[in-house]
Amino acid sequence: MNDAQDFEMKHAQGVADIAAEAARGYFRNPLQVEFKADESPVTQADRGVESKVRAYLGEHFPDDGIWGEEHGTEGDDREWMWVVDPIDGTRSFLSGNPLFGFLAARMHRGVPEIGVIGMPALGETLIGKRNGTATLNGQKIQTSTQTSLDHAVLYINEADKIYQAHPKVFAKLVASGQTRRFAYDCYPHALVAMGHVDAVVDYDLQPYDYLAVLAVVEAAGGIMTDWKGRTLTDKSACQPVICAATPELHAQLLAIVSIS
Amino acid sequence: MNDAQDFEMKHAQGVADIAAEAARGYFRNPLQVEFKADESPVTQADRGVESKVRAYLGEHFPDDGIWGEEHGTEGDDREWMWVVDPIDGTRSFLSGNPLFGFLAARMHRGVPEIGVIGMPALGETLIGKRNGTATLNGQKIQTSTQTSLDHAVLYINEADKIYQAHPKVFAKLVASGQTRRFAYDCYPHALVAMGHVDAVVDYDLQPYDYLAVLAVVEAAGGIMTDWKGRTLTDKSACQPVICAATPELHAQLLAIVSIS
Repeated sequence: MNDAQDFEMKHAQGVADIAAEAARGYFRNPLQVEFKADESPVTQADRGVESKVRAYLGEHFPDDGIWGEEHGTEGDDREWMWVVDPIDGTRSFLSGNPLFGFLAARMHRGVPEIGVIGMPALGETLIGKRNGTATLNGQKIQTSTQTSLDHAVLYINEADKIYQAHPKVFAKLVASGQTRRFAYDCYPHALVAMGHVDAVVDYDLQPYDYLAVLAVVEAAGGIMTDWKGRTLTDKSACQPVICAATPELHAQLLAIVSIS
Repeated sequence: MNDAQDFEMKHAQGVADIAAEAARGYFRNPLQVEFKADESPVTQADRGVESKVRAYLGEHFPDDGIWGEEHGTEGDDREWMWVVDPIDGTRSFLSGNPLFGFLAARMHRGVPEIGVIGMPALGETLIGKRNGTATLNGQKIQTSTQTSLDHAVLYINEADKIYQAHPKVFAKLVASGQTRRFAYDCYPHALVAMGHVDAVVDYDLQPYDYLAVLAVVEAAGGIMTDWKGRTLTDKSACQPVICAATPELHAQLLAIVSIS
């Protein structure tokens, strides 16, 4: 690693730490209900975390732009750009469930060069470097070698939305995989990067939901595209997503969602 | 508290600690795949945890019987009886997901007097004492005061099974609640006891899945019955379950599942 890469990795962990500390301050905090009259408590938490993250990135990457879910875009003409979701999994966060995340991607001319998935309540940070490696709390991780959907651990995110929008795909998915779980948000994708889950079908993701995840999953050896097999970019919105450990699994899931 | 109650509470925490330590030893451990040829790795983990738990209970409660999911029943004619699920959430455990639990209930002539929900990977232990209080890591917890399903945080467990067996109930449930999440196993019920989730609809539970949970939820002020509103006992099997923070929420959910 050269000095620039060292610097980038150090502050990828640093921004995850800042976000985690801020999020834990709000999580399960009864003071949240005070904000409900004019705006939801989670919005307060989102904004509070994102403000800390913006301050940190502004200090250490003063030449980078930033696009955050809550506070919008600054410097979107810059060569480097951070894309941030301060709390991924609003509804989990709201219901006291520790499976909410923090997501940040550092983009170089539209391509995620580094991705950060932080799990504030679990004490886990995953970092993935494009054409490099992926780590969990500093230890290298990689996707599984599973190639058969019939033997796969399959997570289905946003299953209620898929059920409503694509009932045939839903019916097929609930008959797929050896172990099958409904879930939400970034963590199932993180489990793919760790090699514990083989594939995730997800729905209706924004770029700040998938760009960081994409960088981590690809660095761990996996594949992540939309439901037509196309590359996910920072220009698209509301994307259906397939994340898989291997090309074989990815192809089997593409065939299922193609009936939508 | 009298000495007998002190003793019981101390060892309720003690058995959760023993189970948590054993489960963490298996969790995400790559050695598990060695056992796959003749029996699944989770079975090895279940049995290993249950053996430790049986040894602990045998030492501290030598006059009690025990019914464990993996190693069966000993002394079922005893006045006091432990009912144990060493790993609740086999499929979560298998997929590296930290939301698996440990469950133990101490039954007095068929009624759960104390319930333990341990979350080994989260470092959380909930203990509920019949006609007493419920605690999370020693701090008192209680259910929410939510009475309106339209404003409730609703978790739907085993949604794929409900979809297959009771499609009309499923369709109604996915249109219910303000915040709605699909999930599994004991943790959503634990979140009801903590006051973060307002209600859970669950399906196909065995007594070792619900007796400990029932004791914790009721001690925290909640209600847990089958889908007909009947008391859950140690004699029933494969029960559909409703868990709610308040009688009002419970009644609204009973009305929905009654169309099954």
